[in-house]
Amino acid sequence: MFVRNCWYVIAWDHEIPLDQANGQIFTRTVLGEPIVVYRAGTELVALADRCCHRGAPLSKGRLEGSNLRCGYHGLLFNPQGQCIEVPGMDTAPAKACVKRYPVVAKNKWIFVWMGEPEKADLAMLPDNYSCDSPDWKNLPGYMHYDTNYLLICDNLLDFSHLSYVHEKTLGGSTAIAQSRADVSDITAPSQRGLRVKRYVAELPSPPSYQRVHNFTGTIERWWDYDFVLPGTLLMKSGGRPSKNNAVDRGEVELHSCQTLTPETENSTHYFFQQGHKTGQGDAELAGAMYQMLLRAFQEDKDMIGAQSATLAMSLDFKMLPLHLDGALTRFRHLIEIEAGQEALAAAARVQTSVIAAPQRSTATA
Amino acid sequence: MFVRNCWYVIAWDHEIPLDQANGQIFTRTVLGEPIVVYRAGTELVALADRCCHRGAPLSKGRLEGSNLRCGYHGLLFNPQGQCIEVPGMDTAPAKACVKRYPVVAKNKWIFVWMGEPEKADLAMLPDNYSCDSPDWKNLPGYMHYDTNYLLICDNLLDFSHLSYVHEKTLGGSTAIAQSRADVSDITAPSQRGLRVKRYVAELPSPPSYQRVHNFTGTIERWWDYDFVLPGTLLMKSGGRPSKNNAVDRGEVELHSCQTLTPETENSTHYFFQQGHKTGQGDAELAGAMYQMLLRAFQEDKDMIGAQSATLAMSLDFKMLPLHLDGALTRFRHLIEIEAGQEALAAAARVQTSVIAAPQRSTATA
Amino acid sequence: MFVRNCWYVIAWDHEIPLDQANGQIFTRTVLGEPIVVYRAGTELVALADRCCHRGAPLSKGRLEGSNLRCGYHGLLFNPQGQCIEVPGMDTAPAKACVKRYPVVAKNKWIFVWMGEPEKADLAMLPDNYSCDSPDWKNLPGYMHYDTNYLLICDNLLDFSHLSYVHEKTLGGSTAIAQSRADVSDITAPSQRGLRVKRYVAELPSPPSYQRVHNFTGTIERWWDYDFVLPGTLLMKSGGRPSKNNAVDRGEVELHSCQTLTPETENSTHYFFQQGHKTGQGDAELAGAMYQMLLRAFQEDKDMIGAQSATLAMSLDFKMLPLHLDGALTRFRHLIEIEAGQEALAAAARVQTSVIAAPQRSTATA
Repeated sequence: MFVRNCWYVIAWDHEIPLDQANGQIFTRTVLGEPIVVYRAGTELVALADRCCHRGAPLSKGRLEGSNLRCGYHGLLFNPQGQCIEVPGMDTAPAKACVKRYPVVAKNKWIFVWMGEPEKADLAMLPDNYSCDSPDWKNLPGYMHYDTNYLLICDNLLDFSHLSYVHEKTLGGSTAIAQSRADVSDITAPSQRGLRVKRYVAELPSPPSYQRVHNFTGTIERWWDYDFVLPGTLLMKSGGRPSKNNAVDRGEVELHSCQTLTPETENSTHYFFQQGHKTGQGDAELAGAMYQMLLRAFQEDKDMIGAQSATLAMSLDFKMLPLHLDGALTRFRHLIEIEAGQEALAAAARVQTSVIAAPQRSTATA
Repeated sequence: MFVRNCWYVIAWDHEIPLDQANGQIFTRTVLGEPIVVYRAGTELVALADRCCHRGAPLSKGRLEGSNLRCGYHGLLFNPQGQCIEVPGMDTAPAKACVKRYPVVAKNKWIFVWMGEPEKADLAMLPDNYSCDSPDWKNLPGYMHYDTNYLLICDNLLDFSHLSYVHEKTLGGSTAIAQSRADVSDITAPSQRGLRVKRYVAELPSPPSYQRVHNFTGTIERWWDYDFVLPGTLLMKSGGRPSKNNAVDRGEVELHSCQTLTPETENSTHYFFQQGHKTGQGDAELAGAMYQMLLRAFQEDKDMIGAQSATLAMSLDFKMLPLHLDGALTRFRHLIEIEAGQEALAAAARVQTSVIAAPQRSTATA
Repeated sequence: MFVRNCWYVIAWDHEIPLDQANGQIFTRTVLGEPIVVYRAGTELVALADRCCHRGAPLSKGRLEGSNLRCGYHGLLFNPQGQCIEVPGMDTAPAKACVKRYPVVAKNKWIFVWMGEPEKADLAMLPDNYSCDSPDWKNLPGYMHYDTNYLLICDNLLDFSHLSYVHEKTLGGSTAIAQSRADVSDITAPSQRGLRVKRYVAELPSPPSYQRVHNFTGTIERWWDYDFVLPGTLLMKSGGRPSKNNAVDRGEVELHSCQTLTPETENSTHYFFQQGHKTGQGDAELAGAMYQMLLRAFQEDKDMIGAQSATLAMSLDFKMLPLHLDGALTRFRHLIEIEAGQEALAAAARVQTSVIAAPQRSTATA
């Protein structure tokens, strides 16, 4: 079950080559649809990676200026997806074309719109500002999951797992799981999702924090994030000396952008970065933070992969909702509602087109 | 098709760690159900390896004394499978629990009961005495099959294949296939299965026998075994000089225990050992016997794997019953009857509970 | 969808051992049916590679003279597929037999007939003369595809792809795709298929041609082939100086035989060779031609594999027929007609046998 009227991240900006003279053509599958992305000058182009002729992937062809030629029989497509040349024919048939997807870059994330093209609205892009800002330093991350994306949404919507899955990396204390998250709905129509806040008053300062500021006692930590459709986390987190620590007034501030793009029903792309303020920390902090994140996300992937394999053997199993599942239950519900409304709208469009179609005249007796 | 009201071997005793401070938690799947087995002091515990919360495998968690903590969100379960702690909640909900399986060790085999718990009857355990006896020496074996267990039952129920599959290991003569097995039903309610006896009057003495006793001529050999539900072979075999050999009065006596535990419909666990009398043979005999058994069982696995692959391509194929299939045909029939009776009993339980449930009052007109 | 009343190539002649004392028994799957092929003296034998007893593959058994013994329980089959010995039984039951396939060798290709045996007609064998002729030199090739055979038929029925898929090997010019092929039906009842001719007036001479004849200017090239059921290409191709090239009167003449044998619905065997005239070219030409063919066919395999993977994700996709698809559209249509007629004939046989069967007498009132 996917929500289609959404911007989905298909790539980091650096994954789409600038000079395409002799490179691979970028292709990635989103919601089960293989999509080729390339640059026509400074414009991005996203086309179905499947020639309309016999289904060969266009990404195995070659770019000729702004146009893309199929490597099987040589059909040439322009950036609108229209075929403009068939070798051996004087003119290409008008119906020879491939699907074009709205595509846009924002702060180094390349987004494609998977729903009705006329509904593609730039206001619906998430505010992933720290991905590309002089104020923030980070390294871009990508990970591939062989699991449905909802299990990973679940994970990101409940940080109580930091105490157990990430005991030795991000967590370090059972106090995180003991705390309760504050969850509220985001009501802006362009940003459908949840706001989640979690605060812990006393925790040891993790090693990465110590590279920014040399805390001498326990600290208080917070994680404040929006989790919006289709599956994007935008988070401020940080820490400063606990209230009973009167001496040390420093503060660590982080910003993280993470997003899940379903590849198929059973696999997911995961794009992420976590940035710290420019000028804070040592010179190698961005690299160290990235490595720690990778290690922690591999812990998630191990657990979620094992969970997914167990669920695949357990067709009758029903999950048991607990208080800690508040956010993820609401987010799954939101996806059901949105996907359901899209299905109803699609059915209505079909009905309208049937009614509007010219009817055969009925002979009167 | 599985018979559920049975003890299934899930492990050799040495596979379940005694000291669980820093080890992996043992998990194995039986009849499609992943099961974690651990020791709470001297007691064995077998629980569903699937947290009731969100389906994560408990075997990726950790033991805390006699209790098992899920590694995803930290739910803690006691040896009865009851959740006794949810991080962040004052009390764990009563319905938070995982399935507990009756589990028992007997002669180094660890058995779990897969049926209705109240029917678990220790009298139904097989008499695998030679697995752990001062009178017998052996090494424990385990093999994993990617085939349905019934094809392996078939193999163990017809030793005529020794002449062909094991021509160079256990067999060594076509005389085994020429002989006829005597097959009878075992009627004890606790041991449902067949008794199979095969005798060959003149055979060369196999190399392993020569390590026990230096026979100078041909020998007579016998294989007498019970094959009982769910798929357990308990066998006395041996040999001594043929009747026409008046000089040499030595005898070789072996006892073997082998059992098949379906992992899924398409894969099987195979536990086995073949022991010789303590004090007989040379010091390395147990190791040599184990290696020969492994080699022979690999021959079976190659043949059964090839058979299984061929059958998978042959949906219309019907096996052709021959006289040599007497035992395996009867055993497959026994499984059908037992599994069928269990299915009927389960249906009756559902019906009873429906009748017993309070009914809605019907308004009278 | 397969046409069954056809000769299918199952092997190159050299793949079936002459001396079978200690070798593997040859087995290959055709139309989903595993088939064992061996030599009984100078006669070829093709039998279902599945024992009628319990489905074990006979290819894991052993040859005893002209007979084949199953390696599981020792049933012995003669070259007609009749079981002539069951160990432990006085006589083998008459119904114990495996399917025998008509099999014949012609010019180093071994063919099996997959349809009704009484329709097996040697006149339907293709004229693969250059596979075994003193006039032609070649090396035999084999490749395995993990795709349906029709996608490979498509490829062989439209050489416009030479310009793009084989730009750097067989093609070398977009002029091939610019040309139009002349396609006509073959009407001989024993050779059902299409005749395809393609001619290009001016092309650079490819490296392999230069090894035969040192052309100094552009050449004209032609590809004339029959493509006949079930999927066999028989092609004359060649080149000579273009008409405006008055000096150089040499000519290159090649003959190629290629055939596709479906292994299953999703995999295909591909047998091929391309020969040049004996005495022409240098001593290493046959090897060089073979290597170039392998490289080019790997280019096809990469493209067709990618096409197949894309189609597998695109259940709603409809191919768009273009003029260049004339031959492949007609060939697919021919397969549909032939397979359809076979299905109708099979249904009629069933009906006839039902009508012909003795009927129960109906008691009159």
